[in-house]
Amino acid sequence: MNKERKQTKISDLGEFGLIDRLTKKIELKNRSTIKGVGDDAAVLDYGSKCVVFSTDLLTEGVHFNLMYVPLKHLGYKAVVVNLSDIYAMNARPKQITVNLALSNKFSVEAVEELYSGIYLACENYGIDLVGGDTTSSLTGLTISVSVLGEANTEDLVYRSGAQPGDWLCVSGDLGGAYMGLQLLERENEVFKVNQSMKPQLQGYDYILERQLKPEPRADIVEVFEKLKMKPTAMIDISDGLSSEILHLCKNSKVGCRLNEGKVPMDSQTKDMAEELHINPLVAALNGGEDYELLFTLSPNDFDKIKNDPDFTVIGEIVDAGKGVNLITTGGSEVPLQAQGWKHLG
Amino acid sequence: MNKERKQTKISDLGEFGLIDRLTKKIELKNRSTIKGVGDDAAVLDYGSKCVVFSTDLLTEGVHFNLMYVPLKHLGYKAVVVNLSDIYAMNARPKQITVNLALSNKFSVEAVEELYSGIYLACENYGIDLVGGDTTSSLTGLTISVSVLGEANTEDLVYRSGAQPGDWLCVSGDLGGAYMGLQLLERENEVFKVNQSMKPQLQGYDYILERQLKPEPRADIVEVFEKLKMKPTAMIDISDGLSSEILHLCKNSKVGCRLNEGKVPMDSQTKDMAEELHINPLVAALNGGEDYELLFTLSPNDFDKIKNDPDFTVIGEIVDAGKGVNLITTGGSEVPLQAQGWKHLG
Repeated sequence: MNKERKQTKISDLGEFGLIDRLTKKIELKNRSTIKGVGDDAAVLDYGSKCVVFSTDLLTEGVHFNLMYVPLKHLGYKAVVVNLSDIYAMNARPKQITVNLALSNKFSVEAVEELYSGIYLACENYGIDLVGGDTTSSLTGLTISVSVLGEANTEDLVYRSGAQPGDWLCVSGDLGGAYMGLQLLERENEVFKVNQSMKPQLQGYDYILERQLKPEPRADIVEVFEKLKMKPTAMIDISDGLSSEILHLCKNSKVGCRLNEGKVPMDSQTKDMAEELHINPLVAALNGGEDYELLFTLSPNDFDKIKNDPDFTVIGEIVDAGKGVNLITTGGSEVPLQAQGWKHLG
Repeated sequence: MNKERKQTKISDLGEFGLIDRLTKKIELKNRSTIKGVGDDAAVLDYGSKCVVFSTDLLTEGVHFNLMYVPLKHLGYKAVVVNLSDIYAMNARPKQITVNLALSNKFSVEAVEELYSGIYLACENYGIDLVGGDTTSSLTGLTISVSVLGEANTEDLVYRSGAQPGDWLCVSGDLGGAYMGLQLLERENEVFKVNQSMKPQLQGYDYILERQLKPEPRADIVEVFEKLKMKPTAMIDISDGLSSEILHLCKNSKVGCRLNEGKVPMDSQTKDMAEELHINPLVAALNGGEDYELLFTLSPNDFDKIKNDPDFTVIGEIVDAGKGVNLITTGGSEVPLQAQGWKHLG
């Protein structure tokens, strides 16, 4: 490499800055490419239905720690995080491919254990595994899953459709996956010091499951269909609520007021946060991996879901000029900031 | 992991044994899934055209060595090896996604260099980059590319259609990519010992290009279309001629007679092999990475291409009971064996 050239650290740009930089010159060439980079999945038109196509990559030591993540759970999670991207388009996942790079520490049985989780996810969500590539790596395990889904063109929901006056809503509750991870990390540290110690995990089954075996919100997309409604914009929560709200607002060219007091959290999330002296709101805003759906609703549609306990209105969309702000329980208004990019830098 | 369970080494099964074992229980669930695991790409029916979907994964130190592979070339190659899978279905690639895992040794400029090769391949072959995931790794670089293509159902060519009496044909020449790799490895070893030594690469531009900047045979697929013909079976040569012939024969339930003397090789391939005391036929049979197309033709179609210098008839398809054999220039008949799985075990 030429030493005279400027060398910018990736951490100086951040994940999204790097992606913007790498993708800003793309010009789509094919009529069949309706949507490329810039949403949860690409959208392709091949006739009567749109094909929706997305992909993710998980690396050992960065996205997962095999000291406490069972391989079956890892396989399951590698699939569902991809399905979540397809549901976030208001589409239905149909096929996946799985690429694995494995170091020689993995036995056939270990790989089968990983695949048992992959197949369980396929079974639970009606997905066909249609291909992939298995090869070796010098160190550790890398999993790359790609997914294809389908939707009618008119049903697709992008990140870009939110309008001032829309309600900002979220499914389920937030911060659980992050607090489950903190618990697993704590017990792993204890175990490393004293291997006769048994992990203290009782009473935290919900947040452990949120971390180890997340479920994508297929049911939410079905509710939308049943109620004959669709969000104006939608995104799945993989990096944390703050980061996703900022994506949605940027893509929709709007601002937002997020009410701190409305962010839904489970009691186990709060209990664990208290035990570890963490503000649970930080877990919800920046923890990520909850795989809930964040979406905006036109006021006309709001009545259809307002009594469903699985949805929470957490804020409202405003003009871009008003910014993207968190309204604290004390009434202060502070700009929302993303703590993303935790995997790079 | 339970220590009582039997632990089989992955190397005991080999790559294809492992894949067979992992995929044998798959039952396709969706009407739109026409073809899943078991060919160069999956085939999906979403309306008027079939969608063709494939993926590959490259890991540093296993598939490439950044000591002598420029990042731009690596990006280019990561794309074209995937395109080759789509052409091998007699389909047209249209969209790709790219996943990267990067250790902190890579700068933004280095990633841009990699992407410049990715974009060049997209430009040359009319492909849209439609998504992907970029994250960190603890060590080295991993690239996973997925590709979607399209074809009319009746134009698709699988590995399974060869019939006894068909001619076995190959495009271009073989073994060049492998000999290019041997040359680069040799010069890299020299450089490691004495860093003032300049690499001796003159006169070997063709085999270096075969290794560093392979081109998928889009032109061959266009010839087929122009001549209104299609092979009875087809596969691309990524693992070496022997391995691909065995795949094709297994999937078609046929045998084959491959004529040693007919295997096309460039003079640079032969010269380098002589210099390194390697039998050039070994490079052609087992070297891999040539990304040429191996296909079978009905005798009725043979006249259409017999005078095209870009095609070579290298053998004939016979009944399965006769086996898959190499006919040596001396007239001996020996069973063909694959030396695949070089990346795992």
